[in-house]
Amino acid sequence: MAADRVTLSDVAREAGVSLATASRAINGSADRSVRPELVERVTAAAARLRYSPDATAQAMARGRTTTLGLLVHDIADPYFSAIAAAVVASAETAGLQVSLATTQNDPAREVQLVDLMRRQRARAVVIAGGRSAGSSTEDLAGQLAALRAQGVGVAAIGQPVPGVPSVAVDNLGGSASLARALLALGYRTFALLTGPRQRTTAQERCRGFSDALGAGGGVVIARSETPFTWEGGHAGMLRLIDDGSLHGVDAVVATNDVMALGALAAARERGLRVPEDVALTGFGGISTLRDVVPALTTVAVPMGELGERAVRLALTAEGDVVESVGCDVVVRASTPDLRRR
Amino acid sequence: MAADRVTLSDVAREAGVSLATASRAINGSADRSVRPELVERVTAAAARLRYSPDATAQAMARGRTTTLGLLVHDIADPYFSAIAAAVVASAETAGLQVSLATTQNDPAREVQLVDLMRRQRARAVVIAGGRSAGSSTEDLAGQLAALRAQGVGVAAIGQPVPGVPSVAVDNLGGSASLARALLALGYRTFALLTGPRQRTTAQERCRGFSDALGAGGGVVIARSETPFTWEGGHAGMLRLIDDGSLHGVDAVVATNDVMALGALAAARERGLRVPEDVALTGFGGISTLRDVVPALTTVAVPMGELGERAVRLALTAEGDVVESVGCDVVVRASTPDLRRR
Repeated sequence: MAADRVTLSDVAREAGVSLATASRAINGSADRSVRPELVERVTAAAARLRYSPDATAQAMARGRTTTLGLLVHDIADPYFSAIAAAVVASAETAGLQVSLATTQNDPAREVQLVDLMRRQRARAVVIAGGRSAGSSTEDLAGQLAALRAQGVGVAAIGQPVPGVPSVAVDNLGGSASLARALLALGYRTFALLTGPRQRTTAQERCRGFSDALGAGGGVVIARSETPFTWEGGHAGMLRLIDDGSLHGVDAVVATNDVMALGALAAARERGLRVPEDVALTGFGGISTLRDVVPALTTVAVPMGELGERAVRLALTAEGDVVESVGCDVVVRASTPDLRRR
Repeated sequence: MAADRVTLSDVAREAGVSLATASRAINGSADRSVRPELVERVTAAAARLRYSPDATAQAMARGRTTTLGLLVHDIADPYFSAIAAAVVASAETAGLQVSLATTQNDPAREVQLVDLMRRQRARAVVIAGGRSAGSSTEDLAGQLAALRAQGVGVAAIGQPVPGVPSVAVDNLGGSASLARALLALGYRTFALLTGPRQRTTAQERCRGFSDALGAGGGVVIARSETPFTWEGGHAGMLRLIDDGSLHGVDAVVATNDVMALGALAAARERGLRVPEDVALTGFGGISTLRDVVPALTTVAVPMGELGERAVRLALTAEGDVVESVGCDVVVRASTPDLRRR
């Protein structure tokens, strides 16, 4: 810092009060107040000297910062960047700054980052992204519970975390609706690009789809386990095509949008036409879908609403609330009505 | 905070030292050091009590935080989210957390946010995104210069800011290369989707393209001024089509990728085939381009490199450095070789 910066000591001297009083007048205090006439004298002195209050000192004095920590798997993924945009906007409305960290899908790193935010005395922490079943989620739940015990607001987006206020995506309901919509359009036989087996989100989307399908007379006749990425969908689709698994399949159902985009590219490379040779669907509703041909049928998750609700929950929720956010099936050109053919 | 949290006073009592000594031992100090044997005694006491150091207190003691402020126009824009991913990764390597704020293309807001980061004693500030010529950029330059005078590292991405270390995109060179590549493929007549007239980035891309074109015998015969968005490109392309301006045009050149995607959708809506009826190019190299048909020719900006270099500049640069980052023309199916037709 420059030597000529005006300090709080300068302000105290100018106002004729002690440093402690000047600090309490300017920065506030968790436990002591200052007489209004002294506050006025100190504020006037600060204005005369063009003193700029130190946000870190203010946070110290008040016992907490104005930071909201946001953890996402990958900020370059359009799903997470749409959520982040909403979190930043909502946090700002609440007078908070967003500290962004990316977990790169590493549960151990997630736990470390939560610990860092605890040490930084964050006002609130919002954690977005799917979980895997098992011990890593228990570690995370423990960390987040410790945070809440310290008075830090916490919320999870996507998958609920035990003991933590959560905004959950209704993956079961959304994928069941997708199954019913496709059955109504005349589709009967399906291949699944499942996503990673251990991911709860992937499991729920597969199960919701398969259960509703079974109830309506449809059947899954092929599946390919894939990472939750463009490359995963691309490789999984190539496998299905090259080993002959797509014979007799009406539609390929991917458990997220970027996988569906990868699958579309793979079909194109093999000379397979979508939807003439096989139909295709995604899950998520990222904006990229409007730019591809054919436009892709998907299950639209309200990403902005997820971000807004999570900030609100983190700042207000007391108990173990789980709010479920519904999804809408959006039928586009990649799944035409088979009954009209 | 919970009443049962272990405080630094507890640690001082356990170690048998004063609170001031315990603080200097744990948090460090800008001006005083502590004897090694006392540091060891305090550290051991902290470990026995499972004391968790307070990052805010540490920042206070050391006179600065470990925060890197990142300002972008819109985090949901794939161009900015790719830059943000690189900034987060590079900041982490340097032991810094990223505080993310979005400016929504509002210069006044940008200035406010920089002031906020100054008051929070950020370790460094990186500001990404195009500028407009004029007084708002002067205000910003003044704010950033004040930050640097306080010892805060500062860097700008995209457009240089006077007096601030900057990583500049070579818009002139990149668009000139695009013009020469298109001339070499046999294109002669062009329409420009210019982007906003007051934006320096849009101006440079138009000028670089037009100048190189003129030198090579090509000509711009139509132009449409548009916002720098998908909707802007869509509306601008519809105008060009509907008022007959595309007659005799070999290729439409958009000054960024999302505008080119909007233009592609507009062409599709009007039954105009790309590239059979008219060719199309973008600028930026966002990953969405791989999913559209035809794949779009563009000028690829190394977004990851921009983010990495900016963090390095912000943490190390002393003077008024401007590093220029080159761009590569990527020729794809949207601009086939006309000479082979």
